[in-house]
Amino acid sequence: MIILGIDPGYAITGFGVIRYEHKTLRPIDFGVVKTEAGTPFPDRLLAIDQALSELVRLYQPDCFAVEELFFSRNTTTAIGTAQARGVAVVAAARAGLPVYEYTPIQVKAAITGYGRAEKRQIQEMVRVLLNLRTMPKPDDAADALAVAICHAHSGNRDSNRAVGGYQ
Amino acid sequence: MIILGIDPGYAITGFGVIRYEHKTLRPIDFGVVKTEAGTPFPDRLLAIDQALSELVRLYQPDCFAVEELFFSRNTTTAIGTAQARGVAVVAAARAGLPVYEYTPIQVKAAITGYGRAEKRQIQEMVRVLLNLRTMPKPDDAADALAVAICHAHSGNRDSNRAVGGYQ
Repeated sequence: MIILGIDPGYAITGFGVIRYEHKTLRPIDFGVVKTEAGTPFPDRLLAIDQALSELVRLYQPDCFAVEELFFSRNTTTAIGTAQARGVAVVAAARAGLPVYEYTPIQVKAAITGYGRAEKRQIQEMVRVLLNLRTMPKPDDAADALAVAICHAHSGNRDSNRAVGGYQ
Repeated sequence: MIILGIDPGYAITGFGVIRYEHKTLRPIDFGVVKTEAGTPFPDRLLAIDQALSELVRLYQPDCFAVEELFFSRNTTTAIGTAQARGVAVVAAARAGLPVYEYTPIQVKAAITGYGRAEKRQIQEMVRVLLNLRTMPKPDDAADALAVAICHAHSGNRDSNRAVGGYQ
């Protein structure tokens, strides 16, 4: 199973592609899509859409994993991040990929066994679990790999199929 | 000039297509895209994406007008609405349409000359300005027509090109 994990943002969207087979995790690719401040916002969203669609075409993942968004105090940033997340999720849906969502606590617990682990511990565990020599950089790429690993460890449970909790 | 105005939401996205020529406004089409509660959220976003892409194909608008999002107290709804807005904006960007944004106050002022007009006054003015016999319904469609009219009256000003104010 190939999993595409995403950490969405309008300035930086992290991605992590992993293969999970016979209970073994292997990294395929990871990195970030950056968009420049000052670029019109629709163009930034379009760049994210195009980059993710290209990743889907390239790696043909079986599913898409993303963290649930929670409210941030900086509401302008939150609204921008949510728009980028909508673009990422719809890119997956357009490609017919099932989307799985995890809370930050689920991701932390799946990676380290502890829901309140620190960012650096998560990144170190991602490195160990994927047999990488160095820590995956930048943070957004590591976070995207973390949610992909979380999905691998959760075993494709239907309870994590994205529903959004919206009425 | 044909303008596609959008009032984005994950449950109901309003749309209004108008033609503005020789200082005359004409309605072309308006209505809503509804998605069902309980449907997986990615499928709801996909339905919005597909419906808006179909409207663009059908009416070949010259531009896209949408209200700026402001923080709502219900953050779960706000995050869902922002995701739907991202999908709408990227559908426009993918079609190569310039996106124009207006604040709710700009829309109200453009329609009624008064930035704090009530919803019902806006709708009545939309009806009058478009020579409709009855009030455009539902509210989301009227709001989408209002932002399209606002854009027509603003004369394609570059200062309203969507930038998002994000860093």
